[in-house]
Amino acid sequence: MDSKTDIVTTLRQIGAAARAASRLMARADTARKNAALLHIAAAIRAQRAELKAANDADVEAARAAGLAPALVERLVLSDKAIDTMAEGLEQIASLADPIGEISNLRFRPSGIQVGQMRVPLGVIGIIYEARPNVTVDAAGLCIKSGNATVLRGGSEAIRCNTALAKLVRDGLAAAGLPEDGVQVIETTDRAAVGAMITMPEYIDVIVPRGGKGLIERIAREATVPVIKHLDGICHVYIDDEADLDKAVRIADNAKTQRYAPCNTMETLLVNAAIAPAVLPPLCRIYESKGVELRVCADTRAVLEAAGFSGLVDATEEDWRTEYLAPILSIRLVADVDAAMDHINAYSSQHTEAIVTENYSKAMRFLREVDSSSVMVNASTRFADGFEYGLGAEIGISTNKLHARGPVGLDGLTSLKYVVLGSGQVRV
Amino acid sequence: MDSKTDIVTTLRQIGAAARAASRLMARADTARKNAALLHIAAAIRAQRAELKAANDADVEAARAAGLAPALVERLVLSDKAIDTMAEGLEQIASLADPIGEISNLRFRPSGIQVGQMRVPLGVIGIIYEARPNVTVDAAGLCIKSGNATVLRGGSEAIRCNTALAKLVRDGLAAAGLPEDGVQVIETTDRAAVGAMITMPEYIDVIVPRGGKGLIERIAREATVPVIKHLDGICHVYIDDEADLDKAVRIADNAKTQRYAPCNTMETLLVNAAIAPAVLPPLCRIYESKGVELRVCADTRAVLEAAGFSGLVDATEEDWRTEYLAPILSIRLVADVDAAMDHINAYSSQHTEAIVTENYSKAMRFLREVDSSSVMVNASTRFADGFEYGLGAEIGISTNKLHARGPVGLDGLTSLKYVVLGSGQVRV
Repeated sequence: MDSKTDIVTTLRQIGAAARAASRLMARADTARKNAALLHIAAAIRAQRAELKAANDADVEAARAAGLAPALVERLVLSDKAIDTMAEGLEQIASLADPIGEISNLRFRPSGIQVGQMRVPLGVIGIIYEARPNVTVDAAGLCIKSGNATVLRGGSEAIRCNTALAKLVRDGLAAAGLPEDGVQVIETTDRAAVGAMITMPEYIDVIVPRGGKGLIERIAREATVPVIKHLDGICHVYIDDEADLDKAVRIADNAKTQRYAPCNTMETLLVNAAIAPAVLPPLCRIYESKGVELRVCADTRAVLEAAGFSGLVDATEEDWRTEYLAPILSIRLVADVDAAMDHINAYSSQHTEAIVTENYSKAMRFLREVDSSSVMVNASTRFADGFEYGLGAEIGISTNKLHARGPVGLDGLTSLKYVVLGSGQVRV
Repeated sequence: MDSKTDIVTTLRQIGAAARAASRLMARADTARKNAALLHIAAAIRAQRAELKAANDADVEAARAAGLAPALVERLVLSDKAIDTMAEGLEQIASLADPIGEISNLRFRPSGIQVGQMRVPLGVIGIIYEARPNVTVDAAGLCIKSGNATVLRGGSEAIRCNTALAKLVRDGLAAAGLPEDGVQVIETTDRAAVGAMITMPEYIDVIVPRGGKGLIERIAREATVPVIKHLDGICHVYIDDEADLDKAVRIADNAKTQRYAPCNTMETLLVNAAIAPAVLPPLCRIYESKGVELRVCADTRAVLEAAGFSGLVDATEEDWRTEYLAPILSIRLVADVDAAMDHINAYSSQHTEAIVTENYSKAMRFLREVDSSSVMVNASTRFADGFEYGLGAEIGISTNKLHARGPVGLDGLTSLKYVVLGSGQVRV
């Protein structure tokens, strides 16, 4: 056997073990799942030194291999990150158990009662890059939602991930759950990802977490369904009937509260009628924070009349770019229809917001903009699982099928129909 | 350009027109969508003669081409089938509009209100075989759920499908909706299917309706998500604590009420302790209806002791076979665990039922059997959209992601998050 055949064989063994474990995870009761989560949290706190030693070895190896400093930094497991992992598990333990919930149980004219029961998806595959905390966060969410998990972290974090995986598996065993409920792939060969995303008989859904390159490759090659989002090209539209104060506050926060998240605004659309009033005070804030402005000709005219300089002309490419940096593109539009036309053409369907006091335009924007989150008079930065009250989030989906928007425990479940009868037959 | 390039070009034009129409369909109000449905229903009744003439031409061509008589029969559009199509549209018009419904709108500590709004999926591709009524049923469900549709029927029904498509598009236009909200692919070249299932930029989901060969091919080659079910290997388990009368009635109905549907029982599992009491009266009914029995050795012993003959030995292959015919496989099992083990190993995860008076076993079966419909004391034949109260059904899904079980209007929709604020920003 060559090495690729070896890896496929290993992955299929892991997959078969995950499938078997998923049956036991699915029927685990709430107390047992919570016991496992709390056990793992305690072990993470108790073994802080061992985890940091494993992480130090990863970091040293990464530096020696010449990994970019920014990536090395993401790899570092600080004391705070260790506490956050443990707290995250305790928080997941405190969430309501989604499994077994029955909704809409109603009698039908035939006499049967029909409802829907929430059930685990089965086996979740998570493919992620450097951050070792994903190992614990993802495992915790999958345990609580009754799924088995196969985790494939980045090769840079392999020692730390392996150490964390041992704590997770010990916690499962201590609670009387199958160790194989969570498995970490320990080979760093990239062929493992290829094998993992093409085993629909063993893995029910793949959640990739990482850069666009990783996600695009997985989406293209996977035969297992993928819960993903590629881009966050998010828009704020300031309507001519916007409250000026809200408009400035929201457009500032949506861009500058943090630059890197996917729910950060990348393009600001401004109604031409309100632009002379709203753009100068807003852009003075951007200027003070060092945000580069890439503008359309109309925006340039408004800003230059107000004494601004150093503006960059926006190109067609700018409307399609997720900067993830202190750069903002700005375009003036004639009305809400023109704003929605721009959004339809360029948005990645992640999150869009309108700022307006006009009821009818707010309702139209909510209804007609086809993104996973649509907002009125609020910052796009609110688009995440914690802010939405999901308690935790495994990612944000711009898929239309299944989970859309922030994906919490419910996104890792499915609904099956249950029928309660008393001997009914079909006539 | 060769013919395949031509077809891809044509399909991409159809896809682009569907995507554009989907924006208008998504914002169409309830009154307009219902007006279109009722207009089409009236036109189908009014143009009965023209539809039958087109159908006659299809049937004649199919006979001349040597199509199997069973397939020719499925092609025939009777007066009753024409009435049923019109009534189906009227019924869809009477259903509540799922689009725009907002659920769980709740205030969060930050002051924003977060909820979920039901929205159309966008563009639905339907690929189906001979029956021309699917053209109208599928178009009706997609119109009501605010989606644009691309329909690809079987080449045998092309004249009738084209005539129906004209009525549908006239109805859309009469109601002020875009004609391209429903498009029928008029080329009968099979390359059209290949092009259709690989255009995720234009089609959001494919629903195949037809034989297993068609569905397998589509599932294998599609890059667009597919809502599908391949098999209906449905089980009934008669527990030792079953009510004898209910057991006989349900096991009879699940097998013999109709042989061809996917929710018909194919394998009967019987607790060994109750087999001598339940199998003889039940199998006498099967015998009287001409059902061939393929049995395990234990079942044979019970039935031969009761004077039965003509039994066939079940092979491993029988447990994996969807007969869709008057054939039933029967296996004795020791208890509910053994029954669930058999189901886990052989079921297609469509529909399974337990017959028991024991509360704990009923609850375990409901929870632990991983099928799209799980029933207690009811016939598997109830697993369909009308019986479940969905009002209409576009198919039954054994997918775990998105829609599972009978798929009605809601299965053709998605949920997006809506956020209502009053100027909130993230801190």
